[in-house]
Amino acid sequence: MERPPRLKPYGRPKGERRGLVLVYTGDGKGKSTAAFGLALRAHGRGLRVRVFQFIKHEGARFGEHRAFAQLGVPVEGLGDGFTWKSRDLERSRALAYAGWQRAKEALLSGAYDLLVLDEITYPIRYGWVPLGEVLEALKDRPPHVHVVLTGRGAPEALLELADTVTEMRKVKHAFDQGVPAQRGIEH
Amino acid sequence: MERPPRLKPYGRPKGERRGLVLVYTGDGKGKSTAAFGLALRAHGRGLRVRVFQFIKHEGARFGEHRAFAQLGVPVEGLGDGFTWKSRDLERSRALAYAGWQRAKEALLSGAYDLLVLDEITYPIRYGWVPLGEVLEALKDRPPHVHVVLTGRGAPEALLELADTVTEMRKVKHAFDQGVPAQRGIEH
Repeated sequence: MERPPRLKPYGRPKGERRGLVLVYTGDGKGKSTAAFGLALRAHGRGLRVRVFQFIKHEGARFGEHRAFAQLGVPVEGLGDGFTWKSRDLERSRALAYAGWQRAKEALLSGAYDLLVLDEITYPIRYGWVPLGEVLEALKDRPPHVHVVLTGRGAPEALLELADTVTEMRKVKHAFDQGVPAQRGIEH
Repeated sequence: MERPPRLKPYGRPKGERRGLVLVYTGDGKGKSTAAFGLALRAHGRGLRVRVFQFIKHEGARFGEHRAFAQLGVPVEGLGDGFTWKSRDLERSRALAYAGWQRAKEALLSGAYDLLVLDEITYPIRYGWVPLGEVLEALKDRPPHVHVVLTGRGAPEALLELADTVTEMRKVKHAFDQGVPAQRGIEH
């Protein structure tokens, strides 16, 4: 049996207060939900939160959209879901890049304390959103702004720039045992 | 440059609908927030959600508590924060066990569609909550109930029973670079 560690109660933050860059990557479940949970917590602390989703399309109404709407946290789908399916890749590229311009503007404006760039690694990996622009915007952002970026295969230069990086590693997944996606859990 | 995969739009769930056991473990950030994000999503889908926190004390008012209160999702701190600090381990043990009885009752009642047992691995590891009882309750629960369990060092038998397991692996953490905890991000 293990002895419990000595815990200290949480107090007011001491020392430096500054915006962090957090990355959730890896092939396991929990990357986007960890970003949403952080958005929930930050909202609960009165921080100004905005969520951009780079894969979900504009009209998406998954569980998180409904709940964020109830909290008054803006969520924007920047992807093109169905068009993506139709493989109109030039349109996907244009949409992703236009979406990134909106996210960058929000990032640089300083009007938000926490921005979630959900699944942004995919358009970066497909060359639709230039990695260099993302890194520049993160470096140039006002110092109070926290940014959470999610998605598999985060590029090394992004990991280097980040303050906190977690790899969500898949140990096992219900899908692999033939269990279909469950509403309210997977989407 | 990578080619984007062929994505299918999300549809109504097909096939089996059943409650899942999900475990978020490992030493990285994002375990509890992933559970909260899942709770947010499930709530947005109209599922009945309840959150138990095995370390946070009853009066805790972190960001997540305030936001869940706004959503009308019940959150209960079952731990004893400050007493823990004072190392009154017998009281900690009694509190954890009593808290577990409450969680077990909620689990077996079928009155909720998703239960979060946040940081439950710690009282299990300290021997305050018997692992056998947790496994039994998970097996005996009504089939529609989803359960998310979080914390470092999840026991092997729990991983075996789980449908989905993610290890949150710490790649880097702001703390290690001397950046103190940020309000709204860490708590």
